[in-house]
Amino acid sequence: MYRVGVDLGGTNIKIGIVDSRYRLIDQGLCRTNVKLGAESVIQEIVRQVYGILSKNEISGSEVAGVGIGCPGLVRIETGTVLYSNNFDWQDLPLKARLQEMMPWPVEIRNDAQCAVLGEMKAGSAVGYKNVVLVTLGTGVGSGIVVDGKILEGESGGGIAGHNVIKKNGRECTCGRRGCLEAYASATALISETKRQLKQHPESLIAELCAGDPDNIDGKTPFLAAGQGDPLGKKIIEEYIEALGNGLANLINLFRPGKVLISGGICNEEDALLIPLNRKVRENCFAPDWLSIPLVEIARLKNTAGIIGAASLIEAKETA
Amino acid sequence: MYRVGVDLGGTNIKIGIVDSRYRLIDQGLCRTNVKLGAESVIQEIVRQVYGILSKNEISGSEVAGVGIGCPGLVRIETGTVLYSNNFDWQDLPLKARLQEMMPWPVEIRNDAQCAVLGEMKAGSAVGYKNVVLVTLGTGVGSGIVVDGKILEGESGGGIAGHNVIKKNGRECTCGRRGCLEAYASATALISETKRQLKQHPESLIAELCAGDPDNIDGKTPFLAAGQGDPLGKKIIEEYIEALGNGLANLINLFRPGKVLISGGICNEEDALLIPLNRKVRENCFAPDWLSIPLVEIARLKNTAGIIGAASLIEAKETA
Repeated sequence: MYRVGVDLGGTNIKIGIVDSRYRLIDQGLCRTNVKLGAESVIQEIVRQVYGILSKNEISGSEVAGVGIGCPGLVRIETGTVLYSNNFDWQDLPLKARLQEMMPWPVEIRNDAQCAVLGEMKAGSAVGYKNVVLVTLGTGVGSGIVVDGKILEGESGGGIAGHNVIKKNGRECTCGRRGCLEAYASATALISETKRQLKQHPESLIAELCAGDPDNIDGKTPFLAAGQGDPLGKKIIEEYIEALGNGLANLINLFRPGKVLISGGICNEEDALLIPLNRKVRENCFAPDWLSIPLVEIARLKNTAGIIGAASLIEAKETA
Repeated sequence: MYRVGVDLGGTNIKIGIVDSRYRLIDQGLCRTNVKLGAESVIQEIVRQVYGILSKNEISGSEVAGVGIGCPGLVRIETGTVLYSNNFDWQDLPLKARLQEMMPWPVEIRNDAQCAVLGEMKAGSAVGYKNVVLVTLGTGVGSGIVVDGKILEGESGGGIAGHNVIKKNGRECTCGRRGCLEAYASATALISETKRQLKQHPESLIAELCAGDPDNIDGKTPFLAAGQGDPLGKKIIEEYIEALGNGLANLINLFRPGKVLISGGICNEEDALLIPLNRKVRENCFAPDWLSIPLVEIARLKNTAGIIGAASLIEAKETA
């Protein structure tokens, strides 16, 4: 039996088919037309599912189900997206709507939770029972596994991005102040770079963006820092300090065997990982007594979410 | 069968006997002579265990075991106290030493973890599977239960007191800065009150402590605030803000059914709870979408640690 995984993002819908051993048979991608509304996105998902199955000549009876990873707050029991600010969705019965349009079981879950499931099934965290994965993108997502199970609490748990790391700190999109997301997301890095550039127009960053702050992306401050630009170095240092602090807080609580990060910023590799691991170690409680796992880049990158979403469906193998 | 629970504190050793239904049959207390060293404390524990059993005419064959709750970092598998700054103990094989001196199974665990176990067995958290208990004393201890099990991770997890809530904030006893413990422990409240009094000698607090800052305890700033003293109000407001922030971070992650606090400061009851719950609600993520449990005072107070420690021993009932 095959399972379909869908990784629903603000920019793209990624889709893939996995076999019973979580090998990715095929994958595809299309743009997310958020502005056309929820119904349009739902119809696009359905179209993509039928499309990839037909392309791979897989019949309906060979499909165990469709798993969906979705940004935002998902109520698992009902399959409802309680709220997703990327999509501006509220109380959307995503599972029910999809099940009306497809004959297979559908399961939905938060996208970062799907990513950590994917890494556990086929990536960096195979064989681990306690895992923390933090995604660094538009926001800061988190998938936390305790004793082999995704941390949910009574409902909606495992949210690390909106933990306050600085009292009365930067404004966050959630309406509060000082959240990890306001310091450690890619968005936060970019907007901080723009803000700092205004105050330091002499910085190399001005040159790197050809004088237009709109050209600044997550790579820009790393590039500047790598070339010795003082402003770039300061911005990256502050970014890594906040992220290291947030990860250390999670390590103190969860003492995971694996700590993974993912997102475009991870392309910086050692320029990020080396100072980040130093900072994490400085910020962890009792480093002399408890071993502190090295923060690593999640191996599956873009496919973790697809594989994890597919893993929401229990494959029923016929012997 | 009976079980003995010992709640080892920096000031007192509390001891009790529970029956198979976690009813406390008897309890006792003696001073902890930390300065005489680990061996002396161990011998005192043994003396207390034999003493309370003999006083209650319970024979050795009726005892299933002895559980110990100990402040600091405990490695459960080995029964070692990795490190406890209250006792200045390091790598102490507490379980092994006690088992040499008593014929019963011995289990040891962190004291706040014992407190949450006690509340789950016989107190405020009976029937709950996701529970956060935070103790506000010399330090900030935490007992966190996920899906019915104490959160440990690979080893030594569940430490909330040393999570940083303020980047580059107050110095903490752990050597880092901005930890929750540096803001929300009773010790932190007292030292902040002393520090603020120096700058505001006109405050009612000066009168309440009869001019001697050494008379200040955790009640003093609450008393001053209750009488309208601006400095007292400011100190309590800041204390509650930090504690509310720390608890909200834990709620975002664990979404527990019960959130409990314990420690002497809880005697303030509504003067603490009402503004604290307001602050927690303000600081929690997605209050419109997820229900936020009210922070409550743990019911068992001083006996939670004893009962929880006793519960470390599995009672084997003869039918």
